[in-house]
Amino acid sequence: MPFDFDSAITVRPLGDGVYDTAIRRGWDIVGNANGGYLLALVAEAMKAESGRRDPITITAHYLSPGLVGDATTTVQVVKQGRRFATVQAALQRDGKDIMRVIGTFGDVDTDPLAPRRERVQPDMPPYDECPRRDSGDGAPAIMDKVPVRLHPDDVGFAIGTPSGNGTMRGWVKFADDRPHDTVSLLLASDSLPPPIFNVDGETGWVPTVELTVHVFARPAPGPLLCSFTSDVIQAGMLEEDGVMWDSGGVCVATSRQIALQPRM
Amino acid sequence: MPFDFDSAITVRPLGDGVYDTAIRRGWDIVGNANGGYLLALVAEAMKAESGRRDPITITAHYLSPGLVGDATTTVQVVKQGRRFATVQAALQRDGKDIMRVIGTFGDVDTDPLAPRRERVQPDMPPYDECPRRDSGDGAPAIMDKVPVRLHPDDVGFAIGTPSGNGTMRGWVKFADDRPHDTVSLLLASDSLPPPIFNVDGETGWVPTVELTVHVFARPAPGPLLCSFTSDVIQAGMLEEDGVMWDSGGVCVATSRQIALQPRM
Repeated sequence: MPFDFDSAITVRPLGDGVYDTAIRRGWDIVGNANGGYLLALVAEAMKAESGRRDPITITAHYLSPGLVGDATTTVQVVKQGRRFATVQAALQRDGKDIMRVIGTFGDVDTDPLAPRRERVQPDMPPYDECPRRDSGDGAPAIMDKVPVRLHPDDVGFAIGTPSGNGTMRGWVKFADDRPHDTVSLLLASDSLPPPIFNVDGETGWVPTVELTVHVFARPAPGPLLCSFTSDVIQAGMLEEDGVMWDSGGVCVATSRQIALQPRM
Repeated sequence: MPFDFDSAITVRPLGDGVYDTAIRRGWDIVGNANGGYLLALVAEAMKAESGRRDPITITAHYLSPGLVGDATTTVQVVKQGRRFATVQAALQRDGKDIMRVIGTFGDVDTDPLAPRRERVQPDMPPYDECPRRDSGDGAPAIMDKVPVRLHPDDVGFAIGTPSGNGTMRGWVKFADDRPHDTVSLLLASDSLPPPIFNVDGETGWVPTVELTVHVFARPAPGPLLCSFTSDVIQAGMLEEDGVMWDSGGVCVATSRQIALQPRM
């Protein structure tokens, strides 16, 4: 039986760069598909059309909610270069834009240069010692597919005692043990509760305006360690920076999004 | 007489969303137009077509060098919303892509919410106490238009004694005293020497693959304080994070780019 996530991001070519990219149930937050899931879904179509293996840098602008059901993605390969392909895509339903995406694709394994500077992992208790969050705790449905385990110091927001540090750290692993790859990193980049929940206890809907992910390596098997921080919250917007490490301690991706500050 | 930068980013509508966006001389590094300058130029066409005042989040993918001379930008307004417009653009010469851009535009002044978290400025000597760099010192031509003044602790790379900290801090002010605005922040986001020069002394051409800028405020008059850091240099790529403050100490923008590690 295929893994849940693989079923959920399966795309079907319809010709002329158009792909059936139906938005599957279970990857949503109160009916709206998670932004990271939508990005992974569209990236699959972009990968297929470009013939490349990995997203290297990919940016999505979110235009309207991704409701479960039919949707198509139109892909344009702008440039096929030697090392990279640059690709644009539009995720739409009934001609209405849900998301516009631009990405550069390639192979993360090609370069022989040794790392010269790496992001250091935060201190984090082992996976089994971190509290699990799922929909039974009032968390959104997607948490049943990807039941994140948060750092014990970062869970206070859920019971009205936010840490105040603007940080959210957690382990990200699929419920059915699907191994991570460079596409599931896109999901992981939007899979933890927003770190603004740990600023002063304000929670609520945080609509992403734009999300960019940079991929540096193919993740080793095992849970990802993810750390997200909001250091800029002003002008009604917030920035959220993420870093992801695989089980071998390699920084496999970084992410940054700009979102609307929640309105209570 | 208009300011140099305003002349250099003047765009002329040709109809159907196409703009004459000639790449002007003097904003280049050894003949290739600076990536921040190109982004500002294209943003002017996107602003004009969308009728919005400010870039809020804008991402460029760089496909081929922007040589001085004729170039056009084709702009598509994907969505005109209440608060934001989402816009795509292609900068091309003779049908060949130089850059593809996606951005969300709006007005940075509209939101009444007070800042909740802000980036703190680094310690920085006053403008007049920082050494000026211009083309007379072997710096590229663009430094005569925007003669940055680097932090004294960050200039060692130019004489073979890099700081080792992977940081580049400097004041950014136009030679002709043009005040900064939200479009010149795009130029500033790519105007300092790459911070990798302060890692281990390696210098050379650092081709930007993708650059994203988030704009949070309209800058007050005076020089910008800019701080850039490379914390991830691996897989032959490097990430460069920037923060920009205006003369009043307000964080006006952040930037992140992914580039190819220089090959010696």
